[in-house]
Amino acid sequence: MSETGSSFSETGSYTLAIDGMGGDGGPEVVVAGLAIAADRHPSARILLVGDEATLSGLLSRHPRAAAICTILPAGSAIPMDMKPTAALRVRDSSMRLAMDAVAKGAAQGVVSAGNSGAMLALAKIVVKTLPGISRPAMAALSPTTRGDVVMLDLGANVSCDWRNLVEFAIMGEAFAKAVLGLPAPTIGLLNVGSEELKGDERLRQAAEVLRGSALAGQFHGFVEGHDITAGTTDVVVTDGFTGNVALKTGEGALKMAFTLLRQVFTSSLLGRIGYLLVRPGLERMKEWLDPRRYNGAVFVGLNGVVVKSHGGTDAEGFAAAVDVAMDMVTHRFTDGIRDRLAHMEKLTSVKAAPDQQQAVPAS
Amino acid sequence: MSETGSSFSETGSYTLAIDGMGGDGGPEVVVAGLAIAADRHPSARILLVGDEATLSGLLSRHPRAAAICTILPAGSAIPMDMKPTAALRVRDSSMRLAMDAVAKGAAQGVVSAGNSGAMLALAKIVVKTLPGISRPAMAALSPTTRGDVVMLDLGANVSCDWRNLVEFAIMGEAFAKAVLGLPAPTIGLLNVGSEELKGDERLRQAAEVLRGSALAGQFHGFVEGHDITAGTTDVVVTDGFTGNVALKTGEGALKMAFTLLRQVFTSSLLGRIGYLLVRPGLERMKEWLDPRRYNGAVFVGLNGVVVKSHGGTDAEGFAAAVDVAMDMVTHRFTDGIRDRLAHMEKLTSVKAAPDQQQAVPAS
Repeated sequence: MSETGSSFSETGSYTLAIDGMGGDGGPEVVVAGLAIAADRHPSARILLVGDEATLSGLLSRHPRAAAICTILPAGSAIPMDMKPTAALRVRDSSMRLAMDAVAKGAAQGVVSAGNSGAMLALAKIVVKTLPGISRPAMAALSPTTRGDVVMLDLGANVSCDWRNLVEFAIMGEAFAKAVLGLPAPTIGLLNVGSEELKGDERLRQAAEVLRGSALAGQFHGFVEGHDITAGTTDVVVTDGFTGNVALKTGEGALKMAFTLLRQVFTSSLLGRIGYLLVRPGLERMKEWLDPRRYNGAVFVGLNGVVVKSHGGTDAEGFAAAVDVAMDMVTHRFTDGIRDRLAHMEKLTSVKAAPDQQQAVPAS
Repeated sequence: MSETGSSFSETGSYTLAIDGMGGDGGPEVVVAGLAIAADRHPSARILLVGDEATLSGLLSRHPRAAAICTILPAGSAIPMDMKPTAALRVRDSSMRLAMDAVAKGAAQGVVSAGNSGAMLALAKIVVKTLPGISRPAMAALSPTTRGDVVMLDLGANVSCDWRNLVEFAIMGEAFAKAVLGLPAPTIGLLNVGSEELKGDERLRQAAEVLRGSALAGQFHGFVEGHDITAGTTDVVVTDGFTGNVALKTGEGALKMAFTLLRQVFTSSLLGRIGYLLVRPGLERMKEWLDPRRYNGAVFVGLNGVVVKSHGGTDAEGFAAAVDVAMDMVTHRFTDGIRDRLAHMEKLTSVKAAPDQQQAVPAS
């Protein structure tokens, strides 16, 4: 195996290190998720990190998962509410050992449903940030009427400057290539209006740099909140505060739509009959919008694939996070970012005006 | 009539100044909207400002609107794409003269579907900001599963400090009282997590001030994106950048849900039969979520009621914006903010730490 976590083994099979102890559902959900993942990725190898007795007990009940898993014992687990600084001091946690496996090249990616803050801190220290990237970001897929969109940052960086935004665009483009399989994904910069003068200096500066970069042909300019679900661009770039709020607001709006729909279909006898008639279509719609299908946020900009599963997900959701990690590993996502950075040397030489807060009101 | 735009006439009837020339649909949509508004507010008086020939021609075709309207002739109209600084120099625009009417006390509120940037700039100069408020914000209602929520700022201020956020809380509370009729509306501060340590210094500072203020009993703390549609609080406070993105993202998600639903109901014969059975319930749901019902964003923090109708709305939507203006005028919204500010003297004496960007990642 090579020294860097991003390279793949010569036999053509890939290894993921899985934190067996993370998430609200704990090891039960993780192992049940791996049983589903084993069917989808039979040639994958899994290093399952955590309490040996617990994990071997669970694997004996999930023979499909056992077939692809090797247990890597860990002495402790990071609690969901532990502060990142404290988590960094725990040397034998399942999360830490899983990250170590990537850093050593024993695995190409890691998946955990554990504490996000701890995960980001550990990833930065252990897996390390790619040269040329100042801060990792959190990226994930989200549904649109036309397909899926890559959104980032979703909360790793609550404040960002223009340079961070440009880096997010680079990483989002590589993500869309690897996970959506698009040859030349389009990129939008989230703003309060699509006109060039909207937003603050930070956004205008990022847009200017992208327009003059190797990504110019794929850069669509500013997009607005409604463009996310409209699928106007394949990638939507924003700071971690706005991205986190936008993601959760969109999910909340869909949840409200389904709550209201349930009332429509249950409030009368005709409604219940109507439901039976349209059930197959509704189920497809629900599946399309199912948050579990979009589970698996990726910390991008690291020297290896690091995937965060939602803490509250179920086995199906965890399997989706494993899918994302496998997609990124097999499509050599990390190498994709490295290549792009090599073609974006310009970026580091750009002289940008200091960030100013020249406010132009929204339309 | 009194000198200030916020007071009401002694006869119990209220006057609104309406910019007859604003919006993508122009005077036709405005006058058709006023015909609907006239049925709902038969005792209201309307000063309809704009081109006399055009407006009198339209009023002759809408006798219901004519019954409550007096035309105030204006020599020009502000184009939708004119820059705010240029708009300020046009002295005889319909938008300007409508604002002048509020400033002079000839009307208690103004409604325009015109250029937002121009409207905000003119409102600040002509109607003027309330003493004690540093910046006006844009507020509007949005649907939740439990009723309506007041959101602000929706784009008037793309960057805000803690003091602006506290002022938005004060104004949002008064808005919820006036428009939703709630005796003690609850307030949430939008953040990337509900824990006290989440977000940046600006948010933590605003939360601390609110916890020590006269609004403490109504302050719920931090809320997240999904809390908006869940109706966790009656008021959601955020900066204009995040608020604008959140509002448009939520609208976009609902639009996607309806697009997918349409496919469910039209893709098969059973679907079409199912649609006929649930149509009444679906129509109610659609009506509840209809963006036209939520039309009418308010520039709050001014010395009078200033309502912005969406430029692309129809007559029904414009009438909803008039409803909002009437609600605010009759419930003496501006006086409500003044009273609250008088009880918040503390606010101005708070010693706050300078805004820092201490990032705590999102959950």
